Amino acid sequence: MNDLDPRLAADSLFVADGPLSQFRLVDDARFPWLVLVPRVPGAIEWIDLPGDAQRLLLAELNLAGRLLRGLGPVHKLNIGALGNVVRQLHVHVVARQQDDAAWPGPVWGAGVRQPYVASAREALLSSLRSALEAATLPPESP
Amino acid sequence: MNDLDPRLAADSLFVADGPLSQFRLVDDARFPWLVLVPRVPGAIEWIDLPGDAQRLLLAELNLAGRLLRGLGPVHKLNIGALGNVVRQLHVHVVARQQDDAAWPGPVWGAGVRQPYVASAREALLSSLRSALEAATLPPESP
Repeated sequence: MNDLDPRLAADSLFVADGPLSQFRLVDDARFPWLVLVPRVPGAIEWIDLPGDAQRLLLAELNLAGRLLRGLGPVHKLNIGALGNVVRQLHVHVVARQQDDAAWPGPVWGAGVRQPYVASAREALLSSLRSALEAATLPPESP
Repeated sequence: MNDLDPRLAADSLFVADGPLSQFRLVDDARFPWLVLVPRVPGAIEWIDLPGDAQRLLLAELNLAGRLLRGLGPVHKLNIGALGNVVRQLHVHVVARQQDDAAWPGPVWGAGVRQPYVASAREALLSSLRSALEAATLPPESP
């Protein structure tokens, strides 16, 4: 992805390319946290994408949610499209627990990111990639 | 709406009913802020709704974004489905400005809600209702 914002590139790790978006893992061991970055140059707001791309992003959010649930029980999913710091369109999907580091507040801006140790990072990326390969977006998705 | 969570009822004001969701205005004069509450008993996660309801909610988010833009220039829309405090499914759409009370952080959990004065509240609700009546969801929405 040629035009990925350098702050997104620095804080998150490439997982795989979905039909519309790059799936990235936020490098923060405090929360299982995916970010979807549509490969649409100049996109800023979800609702300004063409309708079919909006719905494809929604389908990818379904897939991201299933991936996070595949890692373990999730008390609550948090979905957010903010873009106050990085305007390039990206949508967060975060698996929240009642005892996590920011509960019940939002993860954005909460405390200090805690990068994964290398072994955990590689295991998680591998697990996410396997799950993504096994998953398919339904033809009439989501 | 019979089963509206009492905390949502206390913090926000009824605007109108969309095809799926109740549109509510968060009673916080710091931010133009709508909340969509699908009239689906027991719903918690967006991605657990049936696909057609998910897409209808997305169409309503488009409409909510247009309503907020109709009130004035918006630097960035923030869309969030969190539910950490109130589990009943509800999706936030917030018009953000670079000089608003929480910028660049998220609005959730930021500072103290500042209720509208009565005259401003009624004018805003009236303006939102007129805009909603004039708007229609496209048949193949969004």
